[in-house]
Parts: sequence; structure tokens; C-alpha cells
Amino acid sequence: MTKPYIRLDKNDAAVLLVDHQAGLLSLVRDLDPDTFKNNILALADLAKYFNLPTILTTSFEDGPNGPLMAELKETFPSAPYIARPGQINAWDNEEFVKAVKATGKKQLIVAGIVTEVCVAFPALSAIEEGFEVFVVTDASGTFNEFTRYSAWDRMSAAGAQMMSWFGVACELHRDWRNDIEGLGQLFANHIPDYRNLINSYMTMKPVK
Amino acid sequence: MTKPYIRLDKNDAAVLLVDHQAGLLSLVRDLDPDTFKNNILALADLAKYFNLPTILTTSFEDGPNGPLMAELKETFPSAPYIARPGQINAWDNEEFVKAVKATGKKQLIVAGIVTEVCVAFPALSAIEEGFEVFVVTDASGTFNEFTRYSAWDRMSAAGAQMMSWFGVACELHRDWRNDIEGLGQLFANHIPDYRNLINSYMTMKPVK
Amino acid sequence: MTKPYIRLDKNDAAVLLVDHQAGLLSLVRDLDPDTFKNNILALADLAKYFNLPTILTTSFEDGPNGPLMAELKETFPSAPYIARPGQINAWDNEEFVKAVKATGKKQLIVAGIVTEVCVAFPALSAIEEGFEVFVVTDASGTFNEFTRYSAWDRMSAAGAQMMSWFGVACELHRDWRNDIEGLGQLFANHIPDYRNLINSYMTMKPVK
Amino acid sequence: MTKPYIRLDKNDAAVLLVDHQAGLLSLVRDLDPDTFKNNILALADLAKYFNLPTILTTSFEDGPNGPLMAELKETFPSAPYIARPGQINAWDNEEFVKAVKATGKKQLIVAGIVTEVCVAFPALSAIEEGFEVFVVTDASGTFNEFTRYSAWDRMSAAGAQMMSWFGVACELHRDWRNDIEGLGQLFANHIPDYRNLINSYMTMKPVK
Amino acid sequence: MTKPYIRLDKNDAAVLLVDHQAGLLSLVRDLDPDTFKNNILALADLAKYFNLPTILTTSFEDGPNGPLMAELKETFPSAPYIARPGQINAWDNEEFVKAVKATGKKQLIVAGIVTEVCVAFPALSAIEEGFEVFVVTDASGTFNEFTRYSAWDRMSAAGAQMMSWFGVACELHRDWRNDIEGLGQLFANHIPDYRNLINSYMTMKPVK
Amino acid sequence: MTKPYIRLDKNDAAVLLVDHQAGLLSLVRDLDPDTFKNNILALADLAKYFNLPTILTTSFEDGPNGPLMAELKETFPSAPYIARPGQINAWDNEEFVKAVKATGKKQLIVAGIVTEVCVAFPALSAIEEGFEVFVVTDASGTFNEFTRYSAWDRMSAAGAQMMSWFGVACELHRDWRNDIEGLGQLFANHIPDYRNLINSYMTMKPVK
Amino acid sequence: MTKPYIRLDKNDAAVLLVDHQAGLLSLVRDLDPDTFKNNILALADLAKYFNLPTILTTSFEDGPNGPLMAELKETFPSAPYIARPGQINAWDNEEFVKAVKATGKKQLIVAGIVTEVCVAFPALSAIEEGFEVFVVTDASGTFNEFTRYSAWDRMSAAGAQMMSWFGVACELHRDWRNDIEGLGQLFANHIPDYRNLINSYMTMKPVK
Amino acid sequence: MTKPYIRLDKNDAAVLLVDHQAGLLSLVRDLDPDTFKNNILALADLAKYFNLPTILTTSFEDGPNGPLMAELKETFPSAPYIARPGQINAWDNEEFVKAVKATGKKQLIVAGIVTEVCVAFPALSAIEEGFEVFVVTDASGTFNEFTRYSAWDRMSAAGAQMMSWFGVACELHRDWRNDIEGLGQLFANHIPDYRNLINSYMTMKPVK
Repeated sequence: MTKPYIRLDKNDAAVLLVDHQAGLLSLVRDLDPDTFKNNILALADLAKYFNLPTILTTSFEDGPNGPLMAELKETFPSAPYIARPGQINAWDNEEFVKAVKATGKKQLIVAGIVTEVCVAFPALSAIEEGFEVFVVTDASGTFNEFTRYSAWDRMSAAGAQMMSWFGVACELHRDWRNDIEGLGQLFANHIPDYRNLINSYMTMKPVK
Repeated sequence: MTKPYIRLDKNDAAVLLVDHQAGLLSLVRDLDPDTFKNNILALADLAKYFNLPTILTTSFEDGPNGPLMAELKETFPSAPYIARPGQINAWDNEEFVKAVKATGKKQLIVAGIVTEVCVAFPALSAIEEGFEVFVVTDASGTFNEFTRYSAWDRMSAAGAQMMSWFGVACELHRDWRNDIEGLGQLFANHIPDYRNLINSYMTMKPVK
Repeated sequence: MTKPYIRLDKNDAAVLLVDHQAGLLSLVRDLDPDTFKNNILALADLAKYFNLPTILTTSFEDGPNGPLMAELKETFPSAPYIARPGQINAWDNEEFVKAVKATGKKQLIVAGIVTEVCVAFPALSAIEEGFEVFVVTDASGTFNEFTRYSAWDRMSAAGAQMMSWFGVACELHRDWRNDIEGLGQLFANHIPDYRNLINSYMTMKPVK
Repeated sequence: MTKPYIRLDKNDAAVLLVDHQAGLLSLVRDLDPDTFKNNILALADLAKYFNLPTILTTSFEDGPNGPLMAELKETFPSAPYIARPGQINAWDNEEFVKAVKATGKKQLIVAGIVTEVCVAFPALSAIEEGFEVFVVTDASGTFNEFTRYSAWDRMSAAGAQMMSWFGVACELHRDWRNDIEGLGQLFANHIPDYRNLINSYMTMKPVK
Repeated sequence: MTKPYIRLDKNDAAVLLVDHQAGLLSLVRDLDPDTFKNNILALADLAKYFNLPTILTTSFEDGPNGPLMAELKETFPSAPYIARPGQINAWDNEEFVKAVKATGKKQLIVAGIVTEVCVAFPALSAIEEGFEVFVVTDASGTFNEFTRYSAWDRMSAAGAQMMSWFGVACELHRDWRNDIEGLGQLFANHIPDYRNLINSYMTMKPVK
Repeated sequence: MTKPYIRLDKNDAAVLLVDHQAGLLSLVRDLDPDTFKNNILALADLAKYFNLPTILTTSFEDGPNGPLMAELKETFPSAPYIARPGQINAWDNEEFVKAVKATGKKQLIVAGIVTEVCVAFPALSAIEEGFEVFVVTDASGTFNEFTRYSAWDRMSAAGAQMMSWFGVACELHRDWRNDIEGLGQLFANHIPDYRNLINSYMTMKPVK
Repeated sequence: MTKPYIRLDKNDAAVLLVDHQAGLLSLVRDLDPDTFKNNILALADLAKYFNLPTILTTSFEDGPNGPLMAELKETFPSAPYIARPGQINAWDNEEFVKAVKATGKKQLIVAGIVTEVCVAFPALSAIEEGFEVFVVTDASGTFNEFTRYSAWDRMSAAGAQMMSWFGVACELHRDWRNDIEGLGQLFANHIPDYRNLINSYMTMKPVK
Repeated sequence: MTKPYIRLDKNDAAVLLVDHQAGLLSLVRDLDPDTFKNNILALADLAKYFNLPTILTTSFEDGPNGPLMAELKETFPSAPYIARPGQINAWDNEEFVKAVKATGKKQLIVAGIVTEVCVAFPALSAIEEGFEVFVVTDASGTFNEFTRYSAWDRMSAAGAQMMSWFGVACELHRDWRNDIEGLGQLFANHIPDYRNLINSYMTMKPVK
């Protein structure tokens, strides 16, 4: 009667970054630009850190939507990159779906701009095809709280799991001992409070 | 166990605009008047753009609820227009239901004032009769966050899908190539940030 | 798979007002005191207007929780009034449950202070016994948004329907023609914006 | 010891619109885009309505700041239009100052993007030269509340008067009898709530 | 270098209620309608309680601005009531100024709708003529925080003192012993939290 | 079709306090530090008051996450205390699960830092193993509203019940008569408004 | 033309705690109860720590305003304690003024409930008599932001300096070396984040 | 009667960065950590860009306040760096004042943690000694809005000018033509929306 605990597995997960484009970024007003930029880059960095297959897609790059965030291009120089000729729902683009399926992964971690369209549409389509979908809510942006919570409600009701980039990283990593330094670095780079903790810690050693 | 992805189809959708009246507009305080007015007109414009059968209804026009927003009358001069003699739930009005059924559409896109009454009541009734209901949350207004989220919860639990006018437009359009200019114009007219993008774009051409 | 539309029926509904006491009111901080007081009195007035059997209950009146709001005592001088000797969940009090069942109604409209205890506990218990429960969210108050939304989530997941006092009044009334003046007066007394509309209207008559 | 009441006089006032450009608009996040766009256009319309000499200026139109809002160009086709070659403070541009002085007016009504730079700098400079400066706070936008209130504090301390476009219109008009319809139209076009009042009113006539 | 403490004196104060009209009330969105209505009535009640000469004025009652709040007419049946034929600044209306001066009071307590116009304009004018002006900020309403704080800044800079209705009542009363019951009743009627305190208190007596 | 009412039973409940560590506390920004500290200590005090078996766990105490809150160590000097060597999900730590199971309780009351990781992961795991999970939302903290509501949604969809510490205390206690003074003291210590009520009450006695 | 820097001097400062009573605390809604209680106790602790003469006063203790916060009585068992028989402005009470003057201090640190009355009135009176007044804004509470900022504006315009309890403590202490442990303890007791820093620090020593 | 326009001059300005330390950063809760970190680094980068003499100071680096932000140390490797042995007001430290005076500059741009202490105290002291002080409000952080606005009020009343880092950069630069690329890079690095504009712009060229 309730959703089972489907847990992220770093061996079975791929990341879909949908329409994080310079123009579309100016539409996002449900979180601070500094925070949003940081969240997107954090998600990108974790995708790279865990070696998750990552797929980039954009719509109308040459038009007002603008080019993909330069940082994403640099982080994933050899990732599949589908500049969609017109389909709004990335899942309507065959090449995109093919790239997703080519990863051989069953779990899809999705983020994009704007939440109720570029994230929700492919998320809902992917669920229909049997994928397990994890929406990274804080790396997805939209106009305001109306559109944000409407989109979350629609995706959650369809079976998607709502997560944050930090939750995704933690669930993928499972155990700090797998790599303390690597994960610590990821957090220090993207959570100022965590960086402060580490900086203070680095100048000290345990009493005893 | 979860809701399937029921996708809006421009060939199978009708729009119900319920009680967007001058007096009732003054009751709406869960979003800014400028934004709310814009959202309602955006929904009206998209209904017209996609040639969706649209039904207008009001309650007590001659009383304090006031007349229908003039812009809606102008946008839909020949739409069915049911001035209900007293029924609060538009679905209790036979003429209204008849008009809805006469469209022959199975998907109903609903917005109105106030959300927990004029939207929720017919939405819940329509679901009971087998319609697929899409609530345009940002073209519907109410007193405050208590009443907004109570209404959303009741409708979502009953199977309605929560959407924004922008999400509705995108899901109906499916592919930009169906008409780039038309959709672009709709967005430019109702999303200032999008208009800025287009204006900047128009003065430039791609580097090559 | 989703909740059916269970509609309020004025012939089958009773109202439970749980612990609206002078002391407990000072704990409520998730809405303005003026607004909260107004919402409670609006719910009381609608209960009286629709002649719904109404049950009052309090906990520890002689202690710091303080006496019942004086206005409620005045509005319902002959309603069952159960001053519980200690049970926190009103449904654990036999006399209260007996009074509820004595109404012979199947639908329970519930409000109280604080939402996550005095409302949620009897609401959950009543659902278990087969009652249809409608929570009046804006006539119920609590400490903050954490406690409010936690309580709503718990009750909604159990099958309660979240409503506002205005939604309750409208769903009970069904049709303005049943009594235009009475309902109009109820709204004018408890919705300043509505009163303004009516006041303006009263000084005018339709152009013809 | 306190500022005297310097009152706007439609015969002695000019309007300065500073850097309302498509690109810069995307930086503004201290008010909703719909509301901000409306406020700017309201100020433009009132400038035209009162026949106030109006001066347009931009910085770097050909660069990322983007072109002037198209509506402003259309509203003021023959206004002095100074595309500054580089000066950030418009008052550092001789041509701009010359245009201001050419109006022969002593009172300057200023708005722009962003508040703490494009508005504050010329406002402070103009005060130094003896002008009376009225800042239209709601037709000026910036990044957030830090920057907004810092800018207001700096300008107010220097002697500028903080106003809204509505306050400016009312202070210039002085008496409704000067032109009821014209001012009413201005308000109806830019204040949805006012439009509702007028629309309701138009369908009615006074009782008696 | 700073403002002296000019203290309200019940023998030297008059109250000006400017444009609290049914239509204009719908424009006010910087505080909740329930709270705002309560604040206005509290100010009216205190004016009556302290027997302060009170002057009512409205603009365009027969038009969309709508009639004066009915409660104010009832509270002050024989107060000077100036229905201004067109002047926006009440101080521009000779009859109004004459009525103010006829009170023979030097201190003016002012509230109205909207803050930046109907309150600020006469407040600034009155200061110029040597009156001591006390603005009742919470019985005055406007569109939003931009317009509110701009208006406060302009009035404060000119020498007006910003107060609340509660502060006004306390400063006029000076000493509870002048009339405990009367002031207590005023507070109980308009501050729900205070009423709760009193209600709890009434059922108890001090331990001794 | 909806969740049944699973009611907390003080004879069948254990408390899990997960990662309330000095360093991690600095990451929490979705509620005020004073309030959060108070909520955590309130939960600890109620666990002790009801003699609920309580399990403490931390991650990386010697690193930047910092030591467990000193107050928790003092309140539960002999509770199982599992300093996890690296597992992020406490449920992945065998010793922790063994401690939980050793309590012999079926109901788990869970709180921790941060909500979407240290609370959500073990909550989801525990539900999978058949435990009934009650999340204490206001004794759990995280970065912001995105992460908070994403976490709540995920846990609620999986069957967890969202509660507050106050709701937990009330549901466990059932009847004030079980111990008026004890529960009153708990509330007075952690709810300033309740303490005020009691303090006022203590100086008074009922009239009659 | 601007206020000089009048710096708090621990040898020349007294503290006035005005009407922090159990009943009045329930009126305060412009900050969280946990935070407000903490701020008041922090101010009390710092007054004691710096051995500042402290004066307690209340109004109507036996009535609904309720008794003084018990913690204040305990912290200052032998402080002058003036239970005013009726004067609202404590400065109107001769005994209070005498107690203030008996301290021989020129600087007054003032806090109380509610800000616009119990703080503002004696603050303004004291300034008139030549005292230097420092308002502890975060240990003073009131109904909402209207009343808070109106009161701040009135006091600041009259020459009072707006401070926080933390600022007061720091300005009085001047140099950590005067007593590191004492001030550190004060901060640890009243700033959870500071306590966390200290707790983490205590388990470590500097790397060298 | 009002403050004159004292304009920042890059040849006469120095920057004081006061106590931006890892531990103290965790106390700051009046702006988002991502935004605050960005603002501090933006101020640092602009100081370097304009070659402004910059002075770093900290308090108790070896204690819980923690080390200076690593980025600041790296940006200003050879700046005067005064680790104060105990003075809370940096201006009480002779070495610090000597370093300030050694710059030979009259204008001081100040930021730090927390606003009401580490910024306000030296700002007030510097004004007393005749310096012109510019507070960078958005590169200074504190506990909450009470402490923020109290501090701003105190500093503004004393003659300090409230600015943002963006305003500082613009006022120092005066004219884009002095170095378009350099300033553009500074903005692109610290204003995501500006970076988006530039990125879109880079892929395009003007039509013509």
C-alpha cells in the first residue's frame, strides 16, 4: 500500500541533466541563483565522482534558451549530448531514450530546468517504461512555489522519489570508508558549512 | 500502486474557467494580483492557441461576485457561457455538464476562484464521472496557504493532476517544431523573463 | 487507487470542536490571532446556520489550559459539552464518543487546538471506526509549519479530507438559492473582502 | 531638523528611466517579474499621461546588458535617448546631464536597474547639484533585500524621497476632477484590483 | 539633532480617518484582511473611548472606491464627515482642514488607505503647518512592502512619529488606574491573546 | 486504501537519535538554532520520561562532524551508543540494528541530522523490515525547505508517520491522569508559552 | 549631523527589564518563543555577569498580565523590583525613576514587552532627561513587524541606539582577555551554534 | 541637513575584512551560506582587482572561532594580517589601526562577521576618527533580521554608508571603458545571472 524502499545503487544508476541552459536559468526564481548554481554543479560533480553514466540534453541551444552551462560541458566532455531539435519532453526524442537505455541502468537520477516540464515530463515517461526515477529537487528550478509543488506532487504521485543532491550522494556512497577523502572533498566544495567544519578540523587534532 | 502518466492531448482536452469574476478576484490573496491576472490570461491564451473547447461559467454575476473578467469574454466570444443561477459546484448545473460532455473530450483542464470551492468541487465531480482532471494551480486563487494546500491535497488524493499553465502549454505542444513562433509568442506575452531572452536574442545572430 | 469524492451532506454531518480553550490559544502560532479567532467563529456560525449537531469538548478547563472560548459557549448553549477529565484523545472518552454516535451522523467535521493532537488523534480514531472525517484546517492551529504539515500528512494519509471553513460552508449549502441572504450574511461576517463587495453592491443597482 | 514637504509638481518634474534593459532585468530578484514589468510600464504610462519630459538611458546595449525594454522605446519614441558608452553613473555622462538640464525641471523622478547603482548613483549626484529627487522604489529592482534596503538607506540619508509609482501619480494629479477618466484608466491598466472595482462599478449604478 | 519626545496627550489630540472605503480596502495587501479590519476598528474604538475629536473623510464614494466602512459611520454618527469631491490629498480640501483646525488640537493621529497617498499626503501637509503628526501604521494599509516602507521613510524623515494603535491607546491612557475596566475591554475586544488572558483570569483569583 | 491508524504505545516503542552531533548541527538551517536545540532536548526528555529504550548513534565523531551533543550523553548515560565507523545509513551497521532489535519494540521513533539522510535512510530500512516508523520532524533538521519536504515526501510515501515531539508525547501519555505533574513539567520545560500558562496559573486558584 | 559613537561602558551602565511577565509574553509574536525566552535570559545573564545594576518592573502582576518570569526573579533576587500600581510608562513611576537614578549610571540598557510601549515610552523619557539609551531589540517583543519597526523608528529618531544582547555583551566586555572563560560560557549557554563550536573545540587541540 | 554624496574613490579607499573565520561563519543565519560565501569572495576579488590596500584581521584563531577563510589568505598573501590577541573591536588593537593608517586612505570599505560587533564597532570608531566608512552589508553576516537591522540602523545613524559589494565595484570602476573585460569577469564569476547573460552573448553577434 506504500512505496517500497528502492535504494540508489551506484552500479545501477545513470544521471540525466535536462536543459540546464544559460537562458532558461534566468527563468528560475524558486531558489537563489548562487544556491542553484552550486546545487547543479554539486550534482555534476557527484555524477563524475561516482562514475555514473551521465546524459546531457538541451532544447534550442541556438535560440533564446541559450547554450548549456559551460561548466557541465567541461565536466562531461565525452558524455552523450543530445541537442533536441524540438521535442519538449526529452523522452520523446529517440536518440535520448536510446542513450538512456544504452547505459544499461535501471535507476535514473533526473534534474533540469524547469521542474514541471523538463524534469517532470521525462520522469513520468521513464516511470511508465519501468525505470526507477529519483528527482533531484534542489538541482531543478522553476518559476515559483506554485509550479514547484505542483510538479513534485505530480511526480511523487506517479512513483518518483524526491531527493536532494546531498541525499543522492550519501545513498550512493553507503559507507564513508569507501573513500573518506573523496566524499569529504565533494562536500567541502559544495557546502560552505561543511567546508568550515573541515577547515577548523584540519588545524586541530583530537585531544588524548 | 501509483498514478499512471496520463498525458495531456490537445485533441482530447477541454478547458473549464470557473468563476474568474471581478468581485471574487478581490478575495484572492495567495498570489500577487499582477501575477494572478497574468496567469489567468496566459491560460486563456493557450486555450485559444491550441483551439481547445473552452467553457466559461460564473455564479451570481449580478451580485457582489461581479462580472466575468472582461478579457475572458473577449477572448472567447462564442464559447459556451453558463451563468449559473445558484449552484456552487458548477457540476451541479446540468447545462454546464452538458456543455462539457458536448465537447467530446475526456481531459479537463480546470482553473477558477476560489481553489477549494469553484475548482475543487467540479474537479472532484468530474473525476467521479471518469474524466481525467488537470488542475491549473497557478491560474486558480484563494485566501491563503491553508486553503490552497488543503484544496490541492483533497484534489490530488482524488486523482487530479496538479499543473501550471506553463506545464499545460508544454505538454499540449509536445514539439517546438509544431509552431515555434506561436508558442514563443505565447511565452513572450506572459513570461517577462522569456520576453527578455527573446528580445536580446532578436538583436543578435549566432556566431559562426 | 485514489480517494472517492465523499461530499459533505448537511443531513449527515456533525461538528466536533475540540479544545478551543483560552490557554491553549496562546500556543497557536501558525496563523495570526485575529485570523484564527475569526476562522473558529466562522466555523461555529456555519455549524449553527446549517443546524449541524455540534459537540464541544475541553481538557483541563480548571488548569492552565483555561476555559473554553466564551463565544463558543454562547453560540452552542445546549450542545453536548464534554469536559474530559484527562483523556488527551477525545475519542478515548466514552461520553464523547457516545455523544458523537448519538448524532446519528456519518460525517464528522473536526477542528481544534493543537492540530497534531486534539484534531489528529480523534480524527484518526474516527476514521478507524468508519466515520468520514473532514478536517477544517484553518480553524485548527498549532505551533508552527513543522507541526502543521506533519499533522496534515498523517491525517490525509489515513483518509481524512483537508478543507477550509469556507469550503465546508459551500459544500454543505450546495446552491445559493437555498438561502442567499443567510449564506451571504455568514460570509460578510467573516470575510472582510466579501463584506466590502456586499457593501459596495448594496449602494448600487445593476445598469439596465 | 527634518526634511520639509517637497511636493511633486507636474509642471516642474522630469522622469529619468535608467537602464531598464532586457539583460539587466534578469538580475532583478527582489520582486516578481510580472509585478516589476507592470510597475515599470505604469511609471512610463504616467510619465506620458502627465506629459513629463522623460529621458531614457542605457549602458552597453550591444553587450550582455541587452536592449532597452521594447515597450519603453515605443512609449517614448522622441524622448532623449542616451546610450552611454561606458559611464556607470548616468550623471557622469555629459550628454545625459545636458538632457536633464534642458528639461528646465527641478524635480527628478528616477527609476532603474539595479537600484543601488543605476538609480542611486545619479540620484545622489543630482541631489548634490540641487535637484529634488524622488526615487520610484517599486519601478526599480535589484538582487535582494540586502541590496534594496542598503540603497534606500543611502539615498534617503542624502535627502531623496522614497515613493511608489502610485504615489507619484497621485501627487502629480492632485485632484481627480482634473481628469477622472484618464487617471482611472491609468490605474485600471496597472492595478488589477482597481480594474476589478471599476469593472464591477460599470455594470451598476447608484441606488436612488 | 534628534527628534524630541513629543508625547500624545488625550486633551490635545484629534483622529483623522482617511478613505477607509469598501473598494479601497480590496487594494490593501500588506497585511491580512482580518487583522487590518480589526486594527481599523480598534483605532475607531479608542478614538471614541478617549473622546477624541474624530474626522472622517472619503474620496469618490459613489464611484469604484466604494462607501465608507459601515462600522466607522456607526461609531461616529455625528463626526465631521467630508466626502471630498476630488482632492486626493485631504489637506487640499478646505472643509477638511477647517474641520481639523476646529478641533483646536495640535496633535493629529492619522490612518487611512493607502498609506503612501491618503495617509502620507495629509500627514506631510499637516507637519508643514505645525501640527504634530502620529501615523498609526497598522491601521493604514497599502499594496505591498515596497510601498509601505517607502511611505514610512518619507513620513518619518519629515518628522512624523510612527506608532501602532496599541501604542497610541497606551500613550493616551498613561495610567491604568484612570479606568482599568474600560481599557481592558478595549484590549479584550481587539487583541485575541489579551482576551484569552482576561478570560482565564476571570475564572481564577489570586492565591493568598 | 489509506494508512490505518497505528497508534504509539509506550510499551512498544523505542527512540533512535541519529547523528545529533556538534558539527552537523551547524548544517541545519531549516529552523532556528534555539528552537531546534529545544526540540531535540524535548524529545530526549520525553524518551526518558516514558522510559523508552533509546539508542544513540553517531558518524565520525573524531572528524569534522564533531562529538554528540553533550546533553544527550548526559541524559542517556547507559543507552546503547553506536559510534559508526563509516556506514551512512545507521541501519547498515549491524550493531545498531542488533541494538534496535534487542529492545523488542515494534515502534520506532526516529529523529536526526540531516533529515534526508540520517533520518530517512534508517527509517526507510526499518519500514522494510516491518517496523512501524514515526518520524519526529521537528527534532530533525536539514539544509532548507527543498531538502526537508523532499525527505518528508519520500518517508511518508513509504509508510512512515510524520509527527512532532509534542504529538509523540501526547500519544504516548494517553491520559493526563497517568501523571499530571510529570507531563506538565515536560511541557513547561520545553514550551515557553506553556510555562507562562502554568506560571500564571500557579499564582491563582479557581473562583468559587 | 550624525549621531556620535556613544560606546557602552560597563562602569557606567544599568539594565532596565520592563514587564517581562508571563501573560504579556503570550502577546509577543514577532519572534519565536524559544528564541525570545533565550534572548531575555541571555540579557539577564550578561547583566549579572558584568555586575550591572539591574532594575525589574512589572505592571499589574495580579491581573491578566501575570507574574514576572520566574527566571528573572531568581537571577536578580535583590534587585530593585517595582511593581507599578498603574503607570504604563515606567518612567511615570517615581519609585522607578528614583531607582534608576540611584544607580548613578548614565547609560541605560532597556528591554521589555511590548516594544512600542513598555520599551519605547521609558526609553524616550530617559533620553529627554539626558540618559544615553541602548535598546536591546532582540530581548524585546511585540505583536508583529508593523509594531516592531514603528517602535524602532520612533526610538532611533529620538536618539536611542538599537542593539542586540550579543552586541551589548561584546561592547561591554571590550577584550576577551578580561575573562575568556566567563564570556565563552555566557555565549555557549545562549548561542547553540557557539556551543557547538566550543564542544567540537574541546575535544581537539591545535595541530603544531 | 542630509548626508552629502561621498563617493568611493579607488585611489583613496582601503578594505577591512574583519573576522571572516570558519567557526564564526556557522553563526551567520541571515543569508544563505552559498550566497554569503560568494559575496565575501566577490568583495575580496574586487579589492584585488582594484588594487585596494586590504587588511585582514581575526580574533582567537586558535579557539572555537576557527581559522580565517582559506580563500582570503590565498587572495591576499602579503596583506597586513592582524590576529588580535583579544580585542573585540578591531579598532582597539593598535597594530590594526596603525595598518589602516599606513594605507594613507581616507575611505574604508568594511565587512565582517558578525555585523553588529565585528563590523559595527570598528566602523563607528573609524567614523569618530574622521574616516569615511562604507559598510558592505551583503558581505557581512549575523544571526537574524533583528541583529542585522539594529546594526544597520546604528551605523547609518552614525554616518556610515550602506552598500553592497556590487555597488562598491561599480562606484570604484566609474566607467566600463576603464576595463570592460576585467569588470565583466568579476561579475561573471560572482553573479550567476550575469554569467548567463555573458555566456549567451558570447555565442552570438549583433544583427546588422
